[in-house]
Amino acid sequence: MESITKRMENYPSWYQDVVKAADMAENSPSPGCMVMKPWGYGVWEQIQKALDKKIKDTGHENCYFPLFIPLSFFQKEADHVEGFAKEMAVVTHSRLTKNEDGKLEPGSKLEEPLIVRPTSEAIISECFSKWITSYRDLPVKINQWANVVRWEMRPRLFLRTREFLWQEGHTAHRTFDEAEAEAQTMLRVYQSVCEDFLAMPVLIGKKPQYDKFAGAVDTYCLEAMMQDGRALQAGTSHFLGQNFAKSANISFQNEKGKQDYAYTTSWGVTTRLIGGVIMSHGDDDGLRMPPRIAPYQVVILPISKKEEDAEKVGAYVDALTQKLNQLTAFGEPIRVKVDDSLKATPDKFWSWTKKGAPFIFEVGPRDVDGNNVMVRHRLKLGTKEGKEILSLDALLETLPSMIEKIQEDLFLEAKTRFDENIRTDIDTPEAFKAYFENNNVFLEGAKTPVGFVRAKWSEDEVTIEMMKEMKISIRAIPFDQSGTEGICPLTGKKATLDVIYARSY
Amino acid sequence: MESITKRMENYPSWYQDVVKAADMAENSPSPGCMVMKPWGYGVWEQIQKALDKKIKDTGHENCYFPLFIPLSFFQKEADHVEGFAKEMAVVTHSRLTKNEDGKLEPGSKLEEPLIVRPTSEAIISECFSKWITSYRDLPVKINQWANVVRWEMRPRLFLRTREFLWQEGHTAHRTFDEAEAEAQTMLRVYQSVCEDFLAMPVLIGKKPQYDKFAGAVDTYCLEAMMQDGRALQAGTSHFLGQNFAKSANISFQNEKGKQDYAYTTSWGVTTRLIGGVIMSHGDDDGLRMPPRIAPYQVVILPISKKEEDAEKVGAYVDALTQKLNQLTAFGEPIRVKVDDSLKATPDKFWSWTKKGAPFIFEVGPRDVDGNNVMVRHRLKLGTKEGKEILSLDALLETLPSMIEKIQEDLFLEAKTRFDENIRTDIDTPEAFKAYFENNNVFLEGAKTPVGFVRAKWSEDEVTIEMMKEMKISIRAIPFDQSGTEGICPLTGKKATLDVIYARSY
Repeated sequence: MESITKRMENYPSWYQDVVKAADMAENSPSPGCMVMKPWGYGVWEQIQKALDKKIKDTGHENCYFPLFIPLSFFQKEADHVEGFAKEMAVVTHSRLTKNEDGKLEPGSKLEEPLIVRPTSEAIISECFSKWITSYRDLPVKINQWANVVRWEMRPRLFLRTREFLWQEGHTAHRTFDEAEAEAQTMLRVYQSVCEDFLAMPVLIGKKPQYDKFAGAVDTYCLEAMMQDGRALQAGTSHFLGQNFAKSANISFQNEKGKQDYAYTTSWGVTTRLIGGVIMSHGDDDGLRMPPRIAPYQVVILPISKKEEDAEKVGAYVDALTQKLNQLTAFGEPIRVKVDDSLKATPDKFWSWTKKGAPFIFEVGPRDVDGNNVMVRHRLKLGTKEGKEILSLDALLETLPSMIEKIQEDLFLEAKTRFDENIRTDIDTPEAFKAYFENNNVFLEGAKTPVGFVRAKWSEDEVTIEMMKEMKISIRAIPFDQSGTEGICPLTGKKATLDVIYARSY
Repeated sequence: MESITKRMENYPSWYQDVVKAADMAENSPSPGCMVMKPWGYGVWEQIQKALDKKIKDTGHENCYFPLFIPLSFFQKEADHVEGFAKEMAVVTHSRLTKNEDGKLEPGSKLEEPLIVRPTSEAIISECFSKWITSYRDLPVKINQWANVVRWEMRPRLFLRTREFLWQEGHTAHRTFDEAEAEAQTMLRVYQSVCEDFLAMPVLIGKKPQYDKFAGAVDTYCLEAMMQDGRALQAGTSHFLGQNFAKSANISFQNEKGKQDYAYTTSWGVTTRLIGGVIMSHGDDDGLRMPPRIAPYQVVILPISKKEEDAEKVGAYVDALTQKLNQLTAFGEPIRVKVDDSLKATPDKFWSWTKKGAPFIFEVGPRDVDGNNVMVRHRLKLGTKEGKEILSLDALLETLPSMIEKIQEDLFLEAKTRFDENIRTDIDTPEAFKAYFENNNVFLEGAKTPVGFVRAKWSEDEVTIEMMKEMKISIRAIPFDQSGTEGICPLTGKKATLDVIYARSY
């Protein structure tokens, strides 16, 4: 069995090793794209289920818009937007033909090239402009679950792949206030999914103007902190004002009979969240999965070395599974898997441990005889308490709360780390520089990584270049502003705006 | 309000009108692709939910494989497969650049063109060959929900669009028998979804060899009958034998230590099923939705002409909704929507009628006073029984069975039509030709359309061309063979094989 690099030794290698050891995903034969395997995709299904319910509970309906967007739809954006994102997959032909050597090559050329959607504002705005004519048609609140493509040059599984999965919400409203509230509501929905389901604490705020989504009035964001102290942008929610409505002519007759432009929003989270889960909760033995998003919360390993034990153990496991299937945790049936594959038991045990299944139950002939189950706790791996024989009755009574407790424990651990690694005492340019120069603390065996710095920002344009050189960025302007005056650690000038500085993924 | 063409007048126009009137989908700004709107996508979500559960209950896990497949993966297929499907979207560039006039055009050329997946056997087989080395790794049983692209030249909403949504299952097994049984199992899973959820009866069998999936040993299929008598292929399940395993080297060490090739299967159904639902159950007033896949089974319209009634009606509707939310039909909570949009009540009523919502409840001040609800039955539209005032208590007691009854009624109606329109008495070439020459019976006001003919087939190659000329095809070789001898209505020869001849979509 291949070993996992230790986090302190090389955090990026540790990440890659865990993705592999937990069998979450792998690089695909298609360059820069990934294959999401059952344990990785299973997490995405749990995230989808939780988020989809919240999206619908807040009054949105799902739709599906085309994968391809005609090139001309991007012309306007390219004319007006500085730093227009150009890295996109372009479909130019609709047919394969054989050349003289019998080799396949692109055949019929399209009249107009098609772009594989990097995001769908362009095409959805076009539809909105057709659908919306009166204030009676508003609000329109839709969402889609889809794949999108951005031509990343340095792909990393889950964090940055050329194709990824996401949901994108798009809404149109009568008023500024209603649209702005919508963007805020969805930010809070994301926060709840991150914290309550992924057990991943986040900080919410808005992006500085220079870093907002092109065409947005404001980009709201959630920033999580990985174990190496770097920020991971967990999701964004854009208040687009009337910008997209004006360029796509999303106009309507208002209550007074006058034409007005709609106010729109868009918001999304992606499979990148799974990378956040791994980097929030993994340890040197692999992943530790928050039970609310674990594809299976309990994995049962039937153990029978002798042929004659197999039937006895099998029957006991069947009965156990049926009883477990009637239990609920978090108001939903507990998810149980019996691994009766032909692999050796120690291999199975380590495979599910590295996957981070919250509980592994081992059931052998002696457990059957004693009406017991050997319970192995992933969070207590390697300790005396990590391996405990429970009577069947005790297990059935306590399992739901044991499962729910793990969710709490993982959140608490992450939250403590999050809070401890937001420095608020770094307020001179010298201290600030020294802090972020400390490039790779894990190498030096330090207990805490270089985390976030909450400090002032004077908003001078020159700071953008300074941050680039320091390889940091402003992750968010937190909503909870202190209003106090202090020193911008970049320019040394007096400033009142609180921001979060950090390295990021 | 635009009217719907009558089925008897022009069936294809009727179909288009219903898709539009029910607001299921529309043509997109991207040529040949569709926008699936909430009522259309909502049906797909219900189908997904039902089928996904059955796929998991039969031991499969979901994965996700990349959208793009390198061109070289298709070369082998092109070398070996006659009639290799060439109509695919080809990505040749990964960047947009501006030319001298400021116009966008494709920029960086890819070293190897990428094909937007038309199906994923090629790339999944490649992964299987890496994953599988020992008999202990088998079976592998996976599925993915994804979008695929086939460059259709005559697109039609749901039935034939350039991009569509589907699931594709892919499995690998140790033995011929196990793989063949898997392909058969999934065919039955599809049959159950079609009949029990879509209320759409199907005939199951296998395709003749000339019409099987390229590379399959056998293609099993489900054929539904639309109201115009044409067949709709509702899904296929392929037993691939060792063909794909040999070409992609999916080999394993068996129990005896010898190398062997795996036996594989693949199977899929698509958003085309939604077209089947429309053409199975629609009438001249629009769609009639089977309750099990209706996004909402009950739509409530609060009616208050005077300002002072609004509050009273609103409170009553809230209480009603809460009570309905506690009811179940088919073992699941009833799906209820309150339409409190600003549109006029008659517009709302017709909109939901054309969408085919099984029940529309109208609640006005008089209903509140009497503790009643005005119930409108979509299946009894225009009759005296279609509009009935029920006391709240009676409604709550009977609604679940009323909803379940509609599912039965729709299936029974479709099943009767299906059975009545399979002709088994046409056994001479003359009668056969005359039957299918009757090109468009609906125009002549005939009660029954030209449907299926169950007759013999002599399997001569010449028959393939004869059927093409007659614009018919063999839809399936039914599993329930009679074994009797008869006359092939194409060649006039003696033959024993029973087949189903029909026109098709």
